[in-house]
Amino acid sequence: MANPGLKAYPGTRDFYPDDMDFRNWMAQKQRSVCERFGYREYGAPVLEYLDLYLRKSSEEIVSEQLYIFTDRGERKVAIRPEMTPTLARMVSSRPQQYILPLRWFSIANFMRYERPGRGRLREFYQLNVDLLGSDAISGDVEVLALACDIMKEYGAAPTDYVLRFSDRRLLDHSFSELNGDQLRELGRILDKKEKLNPEDFRKTVDDLGGQWQKKDLVQRVETFYELSLEKADGNPILEYLREIRDRLSEHVSVESFKFDPGIVRGFDYYTGLVFEMNDTDPSNARALFGGGRYDKLLSQFGKETIPAVGFGMGDVTLQDFLEVHNLRPALNEKSSLFLTMFSEDLARDTEKVAARLRSAGIQVELALDGNRKLGKQFDLAEKKGHSHAGVMGPEELANDAIRIKNLKTGEQKDVSVSDLDSSALAGI
Amino acid sequence: MANPGLKAYPGTRDFYPDDMDFRNWMAQKQRSVCERFGYREYGAPVLEYLDLYLRKSSEEIVSEQLYIFTDRGERKVAIRPEMTPTLARMVSSRPQQYILPLRWFSIANFMRYERPGRGRLREFYQLNVDLLGSDAISGDVEVLALACDIMKEYGAAPTDYVLRFSDRRLLDHSFSELNGDQLRELGRILDKKEKLNPEDFRKTVDDLGGQWQKKDLVQRVETFYELSLEKADGNPILEYLREIRDRLSEHVSVESFKFDPGIVRGFDYYTGLVFEMNDTDPSNARALFGGGRYDKLLSQFGKETIPAVGFGMGDVTLQDFLEVHNLRPALNEKSSLFLTMFSEDLARDTEKVAARLRSAGIQVELALDGNRKLGKQFDLAEKKGHSHAGVMGPEELANDAIRIKNLKTGEQKDVSVSDLDSSALAGI
Repeated sequence: MANPGLKAYPGTRDFYPDDMDFRNWMAQKQRSVCERFGYREYGAPVLEYLDLYLRKSSEEIVSEQLYIFTDRGERKVAIRPEMTPTLARMVSSRPQQYILPLRWFSIANFMRYERPGRGRLREFYQLNVDLLGSDAISGDVEVLALACDIMKEYGAAPTDYVLRFSDRRLLDHSFSELNGDQLRELGRILDKKEKLNPEDFRKTVDDLGGQWQKKDLVQRVETFYELSLEKADGNPILEYLREIRDRLSEHVSVESFKFDPGIVRGFDYYTGLVFEMNDTDPSNARALFGGGRYDKLLSQFGKETIPAVGFGMGDVTLQDFLEVHNLRPALNEKSSLFLTMFSEDLARDTEKVAARLRSAGIQVELALDGNRKLGKQFDLAEKKGHSHAGVMGPEELANDAIRIKNLKTGEQKDVSVSDLDSSALAGI
Repeated sequence: MANPGLKAYPGTRDFYPDDMDFRNWMAQKQRSVCERFGYREYGAPVLEYLDLYLRKSSEEIVSEQLYIFTDRGERKVAIRPEMTPTLARMVSSRPQQYILPLRWFSIANFMRYERPGRGRLREFYQLNVDLLGSDAISGDVEVLALACDIMKEYGAAPTDYVLRFSDRRLLDHSFSELNGDQLRELGRILDKKEKLNPEDFRKTVDDLGGQWQKKDLVQRVETFYELSLEKADGNPILEYLREIRDRLSEHVSVESFKFDPGIVRGFDYYTGLVFEMNDTDPSNARALFGGGRYDKLLSQFGKETIPAVGFGMGDVTLQDFLEVHNLRPALNEKSSLFLTMFSEDLARDTEKVAARLRSAGIQVELALDGNRKLGKQFDLAEKKGHSHAGVMGPEELANDAIRIKNLKTGEQKDVSVSDLDSSALAGI
């Protein structure tokens, strides 16, 4: 491209109308499922004080991915990279106003400075769903069921995706001799296991064991990966997860979810349940979404401890998922009318008819140039994908009528302008 | 507030659910009018290369209001302060793909570093409506009619607002002896007239006249303000505006719009029609929206000259307008069910019933704690504003039924779970 001004910023997208319709469709499905579960939508600024993220987001986000700058008033600010810190800020700043538990969701854009690639961009839209103020197991089950219902709402089959879940506390329980820093470091490595080859993973763990003087760490990690809900053996966390699994199985096909001790999630704020959803098609390697329970995060903002569980679902991998599984729908197929302009001196009358058609709820695109031949105007109507075209010449005008033609069947009919209603196109 | 992390960045808003419902309602009305006129929605990144704005936005925006920074890859970028440059970039970068004329709209957030106050914030949402590829007068009329239809859609009365319009070329025509720079400077002063007292305005113009050696400038400006569509006297621009007025009067009450030669608009890219809409209530001084024709802007991006006309409508003044005129609706009054949990051991069965109710299209919020007394659960249901509450105890379970109570009338009824459909709550 010769003109550099024509390029969008790398890793962001221009949403031309077909893509925008798709984005709106994806969001509308999410909205509809969330509302069915009694969740209410909220929104928040795209810019926040940098301070909000310094201790609440993952280290990787803050040090490598955050868009940070200083504003004209010398404030350190950041473009939001995720919603959870903002949500925590919003809920904590009005402690009296809301009756717990709160069920909230939002659909908003975020930015992270990452290397753009399949399933990953710098600007993305994300659904965030959170249930605040309850530590009941029913809350965990609800959030997982809601996540799966979104997939069903898109028309996904049970084998198209898999929800893998675990619990952060399993790590503490299984490696109780490690201190907090060590647990975090081990968690980060387990979180990256799938990106490493088995040899490298084993070596990394072994090095860590050496460094910490825990020679059996490799063995212990292998045992950890063999944990199973069938052999809970009095382990209270496995029993908890088994209960979640059993209750979820009433609601979701068993092929669609499984326990996986390797699910750790990168954010330090998780305290219990953690989960990820993946496409079963290998071309989409990145998670569709992830989330978990974060019971302590809100106490960093307000006086109260407010337990919370939720997830974030980005649009980039979701779009890939829907396309791979042929779930992207044909949109914009509503019937609509292209109203031709017979001649310039009928412009005013044509505008009046267009207004009446629109009042009747019909979508009308008006030809703007009465000097253009009618045949050309019909060509334009077809090219633009309208289902119908209308003509109002002197004869129709005299009869207070409009001639409507179905552009697919060729059928045409004169319709009285005063009798118009929203079904006017349906009969032609 | 003790914790600085609880504050939103100045001039931005947290949208708590009631406010979010209102924002969505405002946007949905705009969307619906635009679609009725055959406009299609598009979207774009919140971040752009700084370069995009350097010559295309007003000087005030670039030098004082733009959020500018350098990213981690040393690119100079800006958070978008308006949509028009992005739209021009998008349309110009795919010249072959679209059939002109294009009718496009978007609803997106923008940031400008301004002093927050009534009707003005740093982050705002704006509807942008543009008709590209036609210089027909019908296009100007359509965009104005669409703007007024949005006001009608909100339920505004004709006297609640006034659309003032003019034409940028009037200035050139009336002050033909001034050069381009002088015209721009004069335009900027006329644009600020309403913010100055008459004495200061007169003095500013007089000083300018002295500086340019045009001693009669004050007199000439007074004459300019007396221009009237009733005395077009062969002035082609006034005749053009008169035609617009006449055609618009078929569609919009005459109290709702008027010619005003003082309308200039701050953006240099306007080339013809310019307009602003104002609240007639004096408490809302700032314009509801503004726009105009910008036939040359797109040629700065692509090879082609693509004539264009459009407007932007911000949500901050719009919200003030709707509130002043009592047009903010009561939202979130749909019927919904709070499903109590009779006891913990019925949790699983209760979850199953919730899922069935949701499949039937009913909005269900589920109680999460079966150890809580049923009376307390009913209290919560009322406090949360649900229309109905449901109970499923051992007796109902045995009958595959659920007891539904209308929380307003107190009426209650047992409903068979297998017969549920979306009208289940309507009968109780």
